[in-house]
This record gives sequence, C-alpha cells and structure tokens, in this order.
Amino acid sequence: MEIGVIGLGLMGRPMACNLLRAGHRVHVWARRASALAPLVDAGAVVQASAAEVAAHAEIVLTVVADAQDVEAVALGDGGVADGAHPGLILVDLSTIAPTAARDIAARLAGRGVTMLDAPVSGGETGAINASLTIMVGGSDAAFERVRPVLACLGTTITHVGGSGAGQVAKACNQILTGVGVVAVAEAIELARANGVDPERVRTALLGGSAYSRILENHGARMLAEEFRPGFKAWMHQKDLRIVMEEAHRNGLFLPSAAVAAQLFNAMSGSGLGEEDSVAVIKLLRRWRQPDEPASGRSPPD
Amino acid sequence: MEIGVIGLGLMGRPMACNLLRAGHRVHVWARRASALAPLVDAGAVVQASAAEVAAHAEIVLTVVADAQDVEAVALGDGGVADGAHPGLILVDLSTIAPTAARDIAARLAGRGVTMLDAPVSGGETGAINASLTIMVGGSDAAFERVRPVLACLGTTITHVGGSGAGQVAKACNQILTGVGVVAVAEAIELARANGVDPERVRTALLGGSAYSRILENHGARMLAEEFRPGFKAWMHQKDLRIVMEEAHRNGLFLPSAAVAAQLFNAMSGSGLGEEDSVAVIKLLRRWRQPDEPASGRSPPD
Repeated sequence: MEIGVIGLGLMGRPMACNLLRAGHRVHVWARRASALAPLVDAGAVVQASAAEVAAHAEIVLTVVADAQDVEAVALGDGGVADGAHPGLILVDLSTIAPTAARDIAARLAGRGVTMLDAPVSGGETGAINASLTIMVGGSDAAFERVRPVLACLGTTITHVGGSGAGQVAKACNQILTGVGVVAVAEAIELARANGVDPERVRTALLGGSAYSRILENHGARMLAEEFRPGFKAWMHQKDLRIVMEEAHRNGLFLPSAAVAAQLFNAMSGSGLGEEDSVAVIKLLRRWRQPDEPASGRSPPD
Repeated sequence: MEIGVIGLGLMGRPMACNLLRAGHRVHVWARRASALAPLVDAGAVVQASAAEVAAHAEIVLTVVADAQDVEAVALGDGGVADGAHPGLILVDLSTIAPTAARDIAARLAGRGVTMLDAPVSGGETGAINASLTIMVGGSDAAFERVRPVLACLGTTITHVGGSGAGQVAKACNQILTGVGVVAVAEAIELARANGVDPERVRTALLGGSAYSRILENHGARMLAEEFRPGFKAWMHQKDLRIVMEEAHRNGLFLPSAAVAAQLFNAMSGSGLGEEDSVAVIKLLRRWRQPDEPASGRSPPD
C-alpha cells in the first residue's frame, strides 16, 4: 500500500521502518532534512511537503508532539488537506487532547479527509518491536481500512469508539501508568524507610492482587536506579495536563491523577524532566539529607 | 501436625478448613461459641482458651481484626503466652502496624514464644481457594518450620525479612491496591464523561503497560456495578491508616496513598464502608445530579 509518514522522531522513525519491512511503499516528509536520511537508506520516498505525501498515499500517519503540530501538518499551508483526494485517511498517532482531535477531525472532514485518532502506548521499544498498544477513535469503515496497516506497528489494536475516543483511552492509560509509577515509588520508599529490602517486597507483591506491569517493569527500573528514558517525565507531564484539562472541562474529581500531575510538574521543575518517569522516586526522597539514615526516627510524641 | 487457629471469621474459618483437609489436627478457640460449630463439624478440636490451644499446638495461627486483638490473644490473660512451651511459634496473619508487630513479637520472645508476622492478601476467595499471597516477617528458622503449613493456605509465600517485614510488605500491598482502585475508578469516570464505553477502554488498556490485576478484576466489578465485598472499604481504610501512620513516623511523602486514604475515609463517612472498596467509584460520581447527563458541559470560559 502507499503510506505516508510525517513525524520521524523517536517513535515515527521505527514505525516507518516497520511499514517498509512489511512491504508497503512509504512516503515521507520532514522539516529537517537530517531526519530523512535514515529513512531514505531504508527505502522510503521523500516528498516535498505534507501535501505531496498525502497526494501519493492512501493513508497518512502523523506522529508529532502536540495538537499544534497536528493542526499545522494536517490543515496548514502545504499540509495533508492540501493533498486531499477521494478515500484519503489521516491516522494521527500523536497524543493530544480529545477535544483537539475531534476539532481537527471535523475540519479535515470539511476538506474531504477522514481522520482517525490512534494514540499509542509502549514507548520507543514498542515502536521498534512493533508491539505498541494502539487505541483508535473514528468511523468503523476507516478503522477497517487502516487496521492491517496498524497491525504492522502494534499487537493490541482496539477500536474504542467515535472521533476522539482513542485519545480518551490514551488519557485513561496515562492516569493508570502515571499514578501507577507514583504508587510503586511510594511503596518502595515505605519499605526502605523500614529497613526492608524493597526487591523482596516487590517479589512478594508480584504474585498477588497488587500485580501490575508498572510494578514489574517500572518497579525493577526504580530499584536498579535505571532512570534513562524510556518515557520521559516531561511527556508524562504533558499527557497528565490533558487529563487535568479534561477533568476541568467535564467537572470531574480525579484526585490521584491530580497528585501524579503535580509530581510530574515538580519533576520538570527539579531538572528531572528528561529522565524516565520512574525517576519520580527521586522526588519522594529529595528532601532527605544525604548522611541521614533512611530508617525511621520517631517524632517526639 | 498439631496446629492452633484463633480467629474464625471470614478469613480464619476457611483457613482452618484447609488445614484440616491437608491432614493437620486443628485446635480452635473462640469467644463466641457460634463461631466454633462449623469447625467442629469439620473435625477441629475445641479448647477452653487461647492458652489451651497453644498448649496443644506446635504452631498457632491468629487471624483477628487489629493490633489490640492480637495483643489480647497473644499476651492477655489466658492468651497464647500462657500456654507457652519449647518450640511454640505464633504466626499472626492479621494486618496490623509493623511497629505493633515488632513490639508484640519482642514481648512474646520474652515469654518463650517465637512470633512471625504473616499478613495475607487475596481476600475471602483466596482463603477459601488456598490461593492467598502471604508476606512473612521473622527469623529464618521459624519461617522454615511454618512454610509447609502456610503452603496449605496460599500460593505465593515470601519471607520478606525480619520481624515486622511482613506487615511492611502488606502496607506496600495496600498502597498499590488502594491507589490502584482509585486510579481505575478515575479512568472509568473520565471515559464515561466523554461518552466513551469504559469497557472498551478497559479492554484496550489491558493489553498494554497499564495492565494491572486491579484493572482486570476490580475494574470489571466496577463496570458490572458489583459492589458486594470482596474486601470491605472500611478494612482498606483501616489498612491505609497504618500506611499513613508509617508515613508520619518515618517522615515519608506518600501523596497518592494519602489521597486513597482520604477517599476510603470518605467512603465510611458516606455509608459505603460495608461495600467493596471498588464502590469508591460512587464517591467520584456522588455530587452529580441524577438527572444530569454524564457527558461534559463546558464551563463558560
């Protein structure tokens, strides 16, 4: 199939390579020529603009940073809509607000382009190994057409609902993973403060109802003090901002998500934004004097 | 083996039955005679006091509500310590504060009784099916002696560390499950407020890094509005009180656990204490007018 990929960063590049490997013809465009070189080597066709990518493709995937980028690439000058032709589908794999996704989809529809929101979970490793979780919002017909293409990128592909529903699912995902990382960090610190080996606690808990992939994977990285991303704290901060705006817009009470959002804010403010989100454990410990033992000292009362 | 079981409630009764089924001789005592009847039918030997149970047993299990009960049964008049004999081990399967466990263990040691703290996770179902997760604190020698007995009650038995370490692991477990339930409830409410089917969101998320046993099991019960316990909200409240006291004692920053603790407090205050902890989702929704649609109404700005 003729497929366009716009956004060739940490996530988009391995996705484009997986599409090439699956035998698709991949059309690419990027503002920075340097981003194109590895794709050209892998066999991708460089186009002069997003509109040209769209003109040559049946399906265009966008994998960019935020709603503003999606809007520019989709609807801006020389954007995807400028290359519209019958049957064109834009699949946006970026994480943006559900409202923004619905708005851009509606405007694209007015210009003859069908859009699906299809944010992903699984990080760079998932993009490389084609093991992403993909949450899709939009029409049934468009979903059925792009499903085989998404199957080249991920293992769990769910059509969640209408336009924006993929972004809603992603927001839910980021609540569970963000709050999950915080809770695991708290449990580890509680064990440490009591002089109990947190690795033994983690092992004991993995066998029961406290089991989560976050405890298994992120917990192991916290204990190994492996803070390289992975998934950068400032990206989790950005995603939880979307959650908090959804809470405000809908009048929702999301207290645990709010706590996680504040902690990821504080990570950025503490110079931890470029580290993996598991480095939130540093924040829980940061006020302890380095030469003070971790085990408890009782207050006077 | 000659085993004592004291505390024949929701958890203790099926545990005693599992020990009988495994071929052990089980000695029981209870304040209320009515609690004894089903155990007698199953073949247990009734004794006149906790001290008499201890006098007849090599290992005594206690499964009671709180530290005060453990103290009374272990060290009170006619308690386990009054029936002490060489080699006697008391295994306390109740959930109490780590400090209380260490204190009672030290006082029992002074009277010749070895104590292990061995709180469990898995609820009544786990007790009935002998699939509990058991987290043990205390000496290596005592752990090795009781391990075959605990293996009749649970599937994941971990020796976490010295005296109190089992209770520390349980406190960690209750952070992860308590915060986990809250985060899942928030995600479901976020999906609903957007008019997205929360079951589809749950399915999408189960395949990725947001997977947890809480999302799988407790999430399903929330969606089915199945609020019968399971694990009662007031018991989770009690366990998170222990966590919050540990946070205070050790000067720890446990913000997500604090949010969950407050919500479980509010459940008790809202008449939800006897329901399963998954009923916390009612609390997140309780201020919505019954005739108001769940989907979002934007604020004026």
